[in-house]
Amino acid sequence: MDTNSVSPLPPPEAPLAMMEVEKSPPGTPTTNDMPPPPDEEKRYEEDSENDWNCGSWFEYLLIVILSTILLVGVLILTLFWILFYRDGFAWSDNPALQFNLHPTLMVAGFITLSGFSILLYRLCRCLKHIYVKLIHMFFHACAIPCVALGFLSVFDSHNLSEPPKVNFYSMHSWLGFVTMGMFVLQFVVGFFSFLVLLCCENRTYKCRSIMVPIHASFGLVNFMLAIATCITGLVEYERQNAGNAVLSSRNSEIEHYIINALGIVLVAIGIIVSVAVRRSNAPATAKVYVTERC
Amino acid sequence: MDTNSVSPLPPPEAPLAMMEVEKSPPGTPTTNDMPPPPDEEKRYEEDSENDWNCGSWFEYLLIVILSTILLVGVLILTLFWILFYRDGFAWSDNPALQFNLHPTLMVAGFITLSGFSILLYRLCRCLKHIYVKLIHMFFHACAIPCVALGFLSVFDSHNLSEPPKVNFYSMHSWLGFVTMGMFVLQFVVGFFSFLVLLCCENRTYKCRSIMVPIHASFGLVNFMLAIATCITGLVEYERQNAGNAVLSSRNSEIEHYIINALGIVLVAIGIIVSVAVRRSNAPATAKVYVTERC
Repeated sequence: MDTNSVSPLPPPEAPLAMMEVEKSPPGTPTTNDMPPPPDEEKRYEEDSENDWNCGSWFEYLLIVILSTILLVGVLILTLFWILFYRDGFAWSDNPALQFNLHPTLMVAGFITLSGFSILLYRLCRCLKHIYVKLIHMFFHACAIPCVALGFLSVFDSHNLSEPPKVNFYSMHSWLGFVTMGMFVLQFVVGFFSFLVLLCCENRTYKCRSIMVPIHASFGLVNFMLAIATCITGLVEYERQNAGNAVLSSRNSEIEHYIINALGIVLVAIGIIVSVAVRRSNAPATAKVYVTERC
Repeated sequence: MDTNSVSPLPPPEAPLAMMEVEKSPPGTPTTNDMPPPPDEEKRYEEDSENDWNCGSWFEYLLIVILSTILLVGVLILTLFWILFYRDGFAWSDNPALQFNLHPTLMVAGFITLSGFSILLYRLCRCLKHIYVKLIHMFFHACAIPCVALGFLSVFDSHNLSEPPKVNFYSMHSWLGFVTMGMFVLQFVVGFFSFLVLLCCENRTYKCRSIMVPIHASFGLVNFMLAIATCITGLVEYERQNAGNAVLSSRNSEIEHYIINALGIVLVAIGIIVSVAVRRSNAPATAKVYVTERC
């Protein structure tokens, strides 16, 4: 067995929850049968259980390539739909065009950026854990302005339209409110638990180790909720505009299929992210000892 | 430590994927530090790592009670909506009333029965594993006639209405088609892999152990897909009937909130089932040796 090979994913039998456990405080071995490695460079080389064959690499690459195509694809498809079938964007002078910012920015923030953030945290194995955490935070931080602007644009477009539309009436808006609340909560908890509390690494170990599986579970739930919210939004929009005579019926028919395709791509993203998270390995497994200090 | 206590859920650090591994063939220990128990009666008693405190029992009971309330509640709420706001059921003589069977039966089959089936498999710890498997299969088998009748009722109501409505046009129908296809595939694969192949337990061990995490992952994905399909169906129906003057505007307003509440309950079910599955323990963990033979 080549002990120097770096394996991307554990075998199906590998314990998933173990991967979600915050790393042990320096010098505290989590398993009795494995000595702590002398330095950080050996974190993956020493982990002989992670040796993977061609099939595992193929699965890893398939997940990476497919998820990249879908996460970028859903944003391109949304932009295509808005630019070619909904006349593009505007701010404040035209409520209908201002509304168009809402689906685009929400898909960019909640799906593309958040999806890459989750997958990068799970699949990135070539960096130190603290860098992976920072990248995970950076992607979520980039999602915040998208979500905030997307939220403002729909509020403005509702309030500026004649007559003004009621806010927080539809199921989409209720689900969206829960999704945004959970997103903010997850970001704040994640930022304080896994970055700020690192300052006192040893004393906050127990707190962080309790938080990790909760943050991971609710993070995935939040992502699924975001997908459900996007799909309800698309369906509501499509049904409301089904009898709209602004577009020719031929265009309207094509638009219907574009919106359906968007829904299917969103569901495919939900499937691939949940499968990838269940199958994949976090950068720092419970068996790996990292001596990061702030 | 009381070694005779039966603990419902493992601590957060316990390996989840381990729980999904098909049990070892008799006499093959999966961990080196644990001797095989002399008989089946000791399966949980010997598993000292599963000792849980009051908090864990509280969490277990909370999940069981909350999920029961939500899974039964969603069916009661659907029946209430159909009976009091959609004039109840009929078969073939009235397409509108025949349609009403569709949401009721689909919620009963895909959400209530499938949800109980998944949760029972995960949370039932007091029975032999083969009985848990049979109950899991029984609940899913009960879902089949519900789904089949629900599918037929919407087809009939589309074809019998004047003018006939197009089948498989909306996003809901596309998602529903994928959900039903995956459900049938999962049922057939599950039935053959985990019940029929048990006849040659030792020779089919490897095959079954590969199938378990795949069946578990895709089962959960299928359940989430069913929830997404139900929500899109509710939203489509609500939007299509928003301008319908059959009901008074007061009733229509209440109906809107009932449908929104149904959507929120469905999302809550999705959250509690995915959290329960991630946190809970299968009846037979990889560390437990069961000597079932058919």
